[in-house]
Amino acid sequence: MKALVYLGPGQKALQDHPMPEIASPTDAIVRITKTTICGTDLHILKGDVPTCEPGRVLGHEGVGIIESVGSGVTAFKPGDRVLISCISSCGKCEYCRKQMYSHCTTGGWILGNKIDGTQAEFVRIPHADTSLYPIPEGADEEALVMLSDILPTGFECGVLNGRVVPGSTVAIVGAGPIGLASLLTAQFYAPAEIIMIDLDDNRLEVAKRFGATATINSADGNATAAVMAMTGGRGVDAAIEAVGIPATFELCEQIIAPGGTIANVGVHGVKVDLHLENLWDRNITITTRLVDTVSTPMLLNIVKSNRLDAAQLITHRFKLDKILDAYETFGHAADTHALKVIIEAQG
Amino acid sequence: MKALVYLGPGQKALQDHPMPEIASPTDAIVRITKTTICGTDLHILKGDVPTCEPGRVLGHEGVGIIESVGSGVTAFKPGDRVLISCISSCGKCEYCRKQMYSHCTTGGWILGNKIDGTQAEFVRIPHADTSLYPIPEGADEEALVMLSDILPTGFECGVLNGRVVPGSTVAIVGAGPIGLASLLTAQFYAPAEIIMIDLDDNRLEVAKRFGATATINSADGNATAAVMAMTGGRGVDAAIEAVGIPATFELCEQIIAPGGTIANVGVHGVKVDLHLENLWDRNITITTRLVDTVSTPMLLNIVKSNRLDAAQLITHRFKLDKILDAYETFGHAADTHALKVIIEAQG
Amino acid sequence: MKALVYLGPGQKALQDHPMPEIASPTDAIVRITKTTICGTDLHILKGDVPTCEPGRVLGHEGVGIIESVGSGVTAFKPGDRVLISCISSCGKCEYCRKQMYSHCTTGGWILGNKIDGTQAEFVRIPHADTSLYPIPEGADEEALVMLSDILPTGFECGVLNGRVVPGSTVAIVGAGPIGLASLLTAQFYAPAEIIMIDLDDNRLEVAKRFGATATINSADGNATAAVMAMTGGRGVDAAIEAVGIPATFELCEQIIAPGGTIANVGVHGVKVDLHLENLWDRNITITTRLVDTVSTPMLLNIVKSNRLDAAQLITHRFKLDKILDAYETFGHAADTHALKVIIEAQG
Amino acid sequence: MKALVYLGPGQKALQDHPMPEIASPTDAIVRITKTTICGTDLHILKGDVPTCEPGRVLGHEGVGIIESVGSGVTAFKPGDRVLISCISSCGKCEYCRKQMYSHCTTGGWILGNKIDGTQAEFVRIPHADTSLYPIPEGADEEALVMLSDILPTGFECGVLNGRVVPGSTVAIVGAGPIGLASLLTAQFYAPAEIIMIDLDDNRLEVAKRFGATATINSADGNATAAVMAMTGGRGVDAAIEAVGIPATFELCEQIIAPGGTIANVGVHGVKVDLHLENLWDRNITITTRLVDTVSTPMLLNIVKSNRLDAAQLITHRFKLDKILDAYETFGHAADTHALKVIIEAQG
Repeated sequence: MKALVYLGPGQKALQDHPMPEIASPTDAIVRITKTTICGTDLHILKGDVPTCEPGRVLGHEGVGIIESVGSGVTAFKPGDRVLISCISSCGKCEYCRKQMYSHCTTGGWILGNKIDGTQAEFVRIPHADTSLYPIPEGADEEALVMLSDILPTGFECGVLNGRVVPGSTVAIVGAGPIGLASLLTAQFYAPAEIIMIDLDDNRLEVAKRFGATATINSADGNATAAVMAMTGGRGVDAAIEAVGIPATFELCEQIIAPGGTIANVGVHGVKVDLHLENLWDRNITITTRLVDTVSTPMLLNIVKSNRLDAAQLITHRFKLDKILDAYETFGHAADTHALKVIIEAQG
Repeated sequence: MKALVYLGPGQKALQDHPMPEIASPTDAIVRITKTTICGTDLHILKGDVPTCEPGRVLGHEGVGIIESVGSGVTAFKPGDRVLISCISSCGKCEYCRKQMYSHCTTGGWILGNKIDGTQAEFVRIPHADTSLYPIPEGADEEALVMLSDILPTGFECGVLNGRVVPGSTVAIVGAGPIGLASLLTAQFYAPAEIIMIDLDDNRLEVAKRFGATATINSADGNATAAVMAMTGGRGVDAAIEAVGIPATFELCEQIIAPGGTIANVGVHGVKVDLHLENLWDRNITITTRLVDTVSTPMLLNIVKSNRLDAAQLITHRFKLDKILDAYETFGHAADTHALKVIIEAQG
Repeated sequence: MKALVYLGPGQKALQDHPMPEIASPTDAIVRITKTTICGTDLHILKGDVPTCEPGRVLGHEGVGIIESVGSGVTAFKPGDRVLISCISSCGKCEYCRKQMYSHCTTGGWILGNKIDGTQAEFVRIPHADTSLYPIPEGADEEALVMLSDILPTGFECGVLNGRVVPGSTVAIVGAGPIGLASLLTAQFYAPAEIIMIDLDDNRLEVAKRFGATATINSADGNATAAVMAMTGGRGVDAAIEAVGIPATFELCEQIIAPGGTIANVGVHGVKVDLHLENLWDRNITITTRLVDTVSTPMLLNIVKSNRLDAAQLITHRFKLDKILDAYETFGHAADTHALKVIIEAQG
Repeated sequence: MKALVYLGPGQKALQDHPMPEIASPTDAIVRITKTTICGTDLHILKGDVPTCEPGRVLGHEGVGIIESVGSGVTAFKPGDRVLISCISSCGKCEYCRKQMYSHCTTGGWILGNKIDGTQAEFVRIPHADTSLYPIPEGADEEALVMLSDILPTGFECGVLNGRVVPGSTVAIVGAGPIGLASLLTAQFYAPAEIIMIDLDDNRLEVAKRFGATATINSADGNATAAVMAMTGGRGVDAAIEAVGIPATFELCEQIIAPGGTIANVGVHGVKVDLHLENLWDRNITITTRLVDTVSTPMLLNIVKSNRLDAAQLITHRFKLDKILDAYETFGHAADTHALKVIIEAQG
């Protein structure tokens, strides 16, 4: 089969790769119909993710059709259309029993990282019963690709952890796909204000279309003052960090109101300064989280009810044999205005 | 001044009444600009509320202008435009300190019940600092009358107590003003389905306009079967009882899914049958609540942000001197299609 | 093997029964070392549990040693010492994923009910990986039998659902084994007062030894007045119903303070009167629950740390061949002062 | 009257000071019977608290007798015995209405900081109705001094914020009075393990007596390894930081388990390193808080029920005219083994 293979820092190729096979009774083989590229794939290509070794098929998102299942799989059969979660969950371990699938002792984020992933014609999914979801009749499958990772990540790590509540004031720092996913899902809780902060005017424009009540281009270094002006000097109840660098995290420290929550979504490579000398008596909360995808059934319900238009995150479409172009487009988002790119893998 | 006075069961009159006076340093006198009539006022007129004695000025909702304040009032001054909460809260007692203002030991629901109310030109508001709210600059004051009682009641007793969450399935039994207030505020939490149940097709039509995803006219006695058909036999995650009679409460018992919550909003005059022989192992929760109006600041934020159109609950308008007509209209809602009627009290 | 078999209302026998066999890859066969009798077993024998058919081996509690496992079992191997949960949980279905194992679509309370149970030399445990727990090194195995059902039931249905918090006032109605399990586990939350109510002075004496701060013998019909006198007229923050008849549930309705919670633990056979005409405005919560045994890992931690002496619930011990005597003793608790009786099943 | 007055960095004196007077209708004057010294008083004396100006009477803890009240005080009258909260709360502002009294817009921590405090014969208490608590009949008043600050601080900032739950594993870094207050109050939630970490063997000895299940002297720099060994490599569910320097906060970052919470109690003077490169995907929570004293009524209930022996925190006693000796003793705790010192102010 064809697969996009990581070949070491800076190197990748679309090449022939052995077909995956059932390795455990709880595995399923899924024929990929559509997949996508994640910012994390770019991190891997930079060499920043040591658990991902050369030779690995990339990708942890997608929808497809069950090709075959192991003898222990009870919820799916060949021909079923499925959504693939970016997180594999055994359903049995201490962490899965606490709904912290991200730390599953035999799963977690392994797809396209520790085992071969979804940017291929076929993929092996471990713990299939608890890591795949049936696609509802009549659903827009392409839009559901957004439910593999980006929407649960924006929702769980940003919105739920940020404790967004009706009437509250939210700032989202970073208007990339994840920040926008937080923006879309924050609206499940009717906050009064959602302030979007980024350096890219195009993305801020998109944010306005997606429901932001205000936007701030932070290029001038005055974002803190702007947020304070917008909030009567109080700051925001929830600050969602969706970039992953010290400057943006520290911006969140500056704009958080007493009693507020900083929800970190970004993937950080270095430490940040935590100004406890200012924050020790401010009654704030800071959270971190790798997405658990516990909200996937709920997000499927919301998509079915038409309260969330996931498709609007998709800007470009490619066939699998043009996946290198898809990487180019996604990797130069400032120029291409790409958000999420769909890769059609089927036949 | 002119005031609508309760004169005993079945009797009321618009008559001259002594002006209210500051009785305690924490009182304020408010000149009413707009008020409204509540279903509870009709209960009083039937003689169902023994705490309300003949001679009492009715009404516990409204907006107005501060006329004078006691020496202990620090948050308001004459001329301030204010929203009156239906619940008076001292801010000091055990219950107020736990945000259960409804059970304030010197307050709670006293307006138009144990002390003179708002269907008058002036009203005395005890515990003014903690029972009035400043009206935001530029707000639609008429719409804010809906925040005195009906919207916090629908929200706190129905939506919050019902633990409505994103993606969930909600049934609201009763599409009167309170049920509709629950319907409007349930949407703060993006439920996937909101099923509205009533006997009146007009009100069900209104419910659809207000955001119900399905409606059921329960006149044929098949509401349970209809809900089960709509929910794949599961029942609903939240059932909000907004009528107050045994039949509607017992309908909620029949349609509640395992793990679900029945939130009682209705004012009940007699006991109901609780079928614990069916429900003891169903992991359900039942709640009761007199509105605390703790959500008023939040609701004001949401109205300011234009995420809630409170004005759509208003169907009719009257001057204070026509308040008896207003009662007629409100009391015959099936014919008049009245939801909330505004009474303009000012000069 | 020997097994205690239900033979229809009023009839049971210790008789030879076919050995259980692995029927699904996720099954385990457990050699029982110790089991016990539950009040529910008596209900079955009265003919009150239609899901339990004649020919069924009774019992849903116990500890034992893994005899064999199906090919899909990964957490246990022959020879492992295990605690059996009264609730079977697949770990995969909608309810298990929400930690509501009691409603597992292929499990729940099936042992000694819909499938053969633990009052035998061997038992088949479905969904073994997620329905058995390893016994910690050096643990008192006999005491752990109390963790199969009674302690998680008292804790989850009574204490957790009753929202017992530090400094609060709790009443437990019913001082049988389940009420006493609630009493023991309520103390995890340091309530200021725990009032135990029962008709049996011996059980009230036991309750005092187990940590009750006050006891009331309700035989004189004055329990409500007694509770009100003890609580300054306020009532209790949590009322735990551990009997299962209308009179005791309605007592809970009378003694609950505004803002309080009635947690129903009892198994009810008939409806009760819910006095909403008194309770609609009291901000109370009523809960029902079949135990989920989600707290079993936590309870194991607490037992290991010696913060809970589970063994004190055990009053009598029998060999399996004397299990009919054990039923006699347990069934006449008023005379025998039995709480829980241990049945030693092993060779 | 006599009062301990701050005279600038490093300087204090017991001197004559004008009697406090009612300045607002909601004030009360309290005749102090017993007070104590807090670590924060030492911070002020080092010059680290710029809001506290020379000439200020120090102290924010104590019990006493109402001497006089303003016209707006309704809950207290002269002669009433009262507990003084270290936090003044108006009960009316946005923060007080959300139970965040620490950020009261006209209160918060002002006693012995922005206004004269309790280390004197008399003190003026603003917002008396909502900042004083009646002393229960027959209570040990000396022990209640521990409820002014240290016990609510240890409980709210450490235990509540740390989300200590039954069966969990807790580490408390710092065994000074605040850490010990967290230790005592953590036991309200029956954690399975409480590991106390400090540099002082005497304090660790005290911690064992107070209920620690394990102690670690971190002088050798191996505390992280020791905690990991004790927890099977998992780390702790809650890490309570009760020192206030970078090294101890960073220790908490190292020992926190996935899904765990770091609750900061310490007063920090400089920033700390937050290692998001390690923590971003660990699902952890970090909290900060200035005590709100919302738990004071609950703590009073617990003390009344004898579930908490607050008196054991008291090691030394002095008369007011020996308060300089009391400061010496408290300031040299390593030598004197002082925890809390009581100063008797009366007559």
